[in-house]
Amino acid sequence: MSELKTFISDQPFVLESGAVLPQLRIGYHTYGSLNKDQNNVVWVCHALTASSDVDDWWGEIAGRNGYFNSKEHFIISANILGSVYGSSNPTDIDPASGEMYGLDYPLFTMRDIVRAHVILKDYLGIKRIHFCLGGSCGGQQVLEFALLTNAIDHLMIICASARETAWSIAIHSAQRLAIEADGTWGEKIPNAGKKGLKAARGMGLLGYRTFDAYVQTQTDDDEKVDHFKAESYIRYQGDKLVQRFNAYAYWFLTKALDSHHIGRGRGKSIEQVLAKIESNVLVIGIDSDVLIPPSEQEFIAKHIPQATYTCIHSIFGHDGFLIEQNQIVKEIDNFLTSHHGI
Amino acid sequence: MSELKTFISDQPFVLESGAVLPQLRIGYHTYGSLNKDQNNVVWVCHALTASSDVDDWWGEIAGRNGYFNSKEHFIISANILGSVYGSSNPTDIDPASGEMYGLDYPLFTMRDIVRAHVILKDYLGIKRIHFCLGGSCGGQQVLEFALLTNAIDHLMIICASARETAWSIAIHSAQRLAIEADGTWGEKIPNAGKKGLKAARGMGLLGYRTFDAYVQTQTDDDEKVDHFKAESYIRYQGDKLVQRFNAYAYWFLTKALDSHHIGRGRGKSIEQVLAKIESNVLVIGIDSDVLIPPSEQEFIAKHIPQATYTCIHSIFGHDGFLIEQNQIVKEIDNFLTSHHGI
Repeated sequence: MSELKTFISDQPFVLESGAVLPQLRIGYHTYGSLNKDQNNVVWVCHALTASSDVDDWWGEIAGRNGYFNSKEHFIISANILGSVYGSSNPTDIDPASGEMYGLDYPLFTMRDIVRAHVILKDYLGIKRIHFCLGGSCGGQQVLEFALLTNAIDHLMIICASARETAWSIAIHSAQRLAIEADGTWGEKIPNAGKKGLKAARGMGLLGYRTFDAYVQTQTDDDEKVDHFKAESYIRYQGDKLVQRFNAYAYWFLTKALDSHHIGRGRGKSIEQVLAKIESNVLVIGIDSDVLIPPSEQEFIAKHIPQATYTCIHSIFGHDGFLIEQNQIVKEIDNFLTSHHGI
Repeated sequence: MSELKTFISDQPFVLESGAVLPQLRIGYHTYGSLNKDQNNVVWVCHALTASSDVDDWWGEIAGRNGYFNSKEHFIISANILGSVYGSSNPTDIDPASGEMYGLDYPLFTMRDIVRAHVILKDYLGIKRIHFCLGGSCGGQQVLEFALLTNAIDHLMIICASARETAWSIAIHSAQRLAIEADGTWGEKIPNAGKKGLKAARGMGLLGYRTFDAYVQTQTDDDEKVDHFKAESYIRYQGDKLVQRFNAYAYWFLTKALDSHHIGRGRGKSIEQVLAKIESNVLVIGIDSDVLIPPSEQEFIAKHIPQATYTCIHSIFGHDGFLIEQNQIVKEIDNFLTSHHGI
C-alpha cells in the first residue's frame, strides 16, 4: 500500500497570472523505485476530482499490480494544484489575512498545475520519464508536461483535447453558476457551497455518460410519477462527491480546465505547438465520448509527428477512460511493443 | 395583435395525484375565428418556458401570417398549468394559508397539463381539432391530447418522446439541485431561487444545442485565460430567463416533464397505447437533437397506425424545432397535401 507523501516548497510559486502562492504543497504517491538505468519512470496525471492514489482508480493500468507496476516501474502521480488531496488549495489559510482563502485564492491555469509537477519531478531527481499518461484533464496535463519539459519518451493521452472546447467551458460555466447560487457560497469555511457542488456534480455526470447509457441503466420499470431512478442516481452521486470534495476547489479547478490551451503564450498556432512534441505518442479516443469527442483526439494525433491514433468502443462515454482499463492496457502494450519501448 | 385571454373555472381541478386545485386559471391566445363547418381549428402546444403567444415564437408555422394563419384558421394556444404566462402556478396565493404556494403547490403531471386544456377546449365549444401540433414538451402534450380526446384529425410532433427518458430526467434532476441550492429557495416570495434558476437554465441550454454548435459559435479568437465567450453566453441566457420566469414554476414544470408517460394508468404498454391513436400523424425528428434524439420519434411513428416519419437536418440540435420553421412548414404542407387535409 502506497501512502500519500507531501512535498513542500517554501519558494514562492508565481502563477501564470503573476499572482504568487507564498508556499507550494504537492501531495503525491509513488509505487516501486527508480532502477539503475533510470529509465523506468511512469508518471500518471489524474483527472478533475481524482487523487494521486492511482492504484485506487487506474490499478489495472498503473499501480502495485497493474500493467505498469511497482516491481518493474517507478510510478509517480501527483495531486493537482487546487485539489484537496494533498496539494495547495483554496481551503488553505491565506497568510496575508489569517483566514481561509476561499474565493480570494488566485486563479491558476492548467499550465500552472503542470509547472508545479515539474518542480516535484526535479525535486525527486527524475531526469527522463519513460511513459507519461492520463485521461481527460489528466491527458491535457500530459500534453503540457511534454511541452514544458521535453523529458518524456512515450506518452498516452485519452479523452483529452489540445484546448478546452467552448462546449466544455459552457458546461463548467453552468456548474459554477450552481455553486455560486448556494446560499453559503463566499463564506470562508470549508463547508461553504456544498449544495451547489452537489448540483454541479449532477450536471457534470451527464457529460460523463451517454443518452443510451442513462436509458439502459436508469429507466424505471413501473409507472411512477416521481422518485425516478435517474433522479436518485444524480442525487446519490452528488452527495458522494460533496462528502469527499470541496466547492472552492471544484470552482477553481473548472476555471483551470477552461484555461487549457497549449498554444497560449507560445507564439504559435496549436497545430505548430503540437508539431514540437518529440515524444512517441499514443492518442486514444472513445467512440461514445460526448464530452471530449474523438475528433479532438484525432486533431492531436494528426499534428504530433510521432503519433498513433486509435478509437476504442465503449458504451460508457467519457467515463470509459476509467472503466475500459483492459482495452487501454492492450492499446498501450501494442504501442510500446511497436516502439520497442518496454 | 392577439391578446392574452383568461379562462377561469371555479370547479375544483382534481390532479392525477388526487390533490385538488380549488380554482383553475388558463391563459390562452386565439388568432382568427371558427369557420361555419367548424373544421379549421389549429391547436398549438407550447414548450417548457414559452407562452401561448405562438405568433411570437412560431410565427412562420402558426400565427397571424403563418402557414396556419388568422385568415384561414382558428388558431388556439393555451399556457400550460404551472407556467407564469397566465395559468395557475406556484406563485398563486394558497387560499388555505393566505400565502403564496411556493413549494406547497401540489405536484402535477404532463397529463394534468393537457386535461386542463381539454377543459378549455370544451369551454370554447371546440368539437374537432383539424390540426394539433407541438415541439419538445409541446409534442408530448399533443400525444396526450390525442389520447384524452380522440378529437384530433391531424397532428404533428417534433423532438418529443412517448415517455420522458432517463436521460432527460437526469438533466432535470441536476437542474432542480441547482435551484434547491439557492439560499432563498423555499421562501414564499416570487423572487426566491433566482440564482438557482439561472444555473438551471444554463444547464438546460447545453442540451438544446450541440458540441459542434458551441465550438462553431462560442470559441474565442484570442489566448485569454478567463472571461470566455461560452461563459458569457451561458450567464447572459441564464439572466434572460430569470427576468421572465419563476424558479418554482421551473422546478414544478420539470417535475411534470419527468412524469410524461403515455402508458401510465392505461393498462397497456406504450406501444399498445400509441396504436390507439386514430389521427393522421406527422412525426419529425432533428438529426442533431441530443436531448430527445430522433430514435424517440422513430419509435412513436413506428407504433401509430397512420404515421409519417421524417428527419430534418439542422446544426441547431433540439433548438431546431424553434429555428427550422421553414423546413417544418414544408414537411407539414407535404403531409397535409398527401392527406387532402387542407
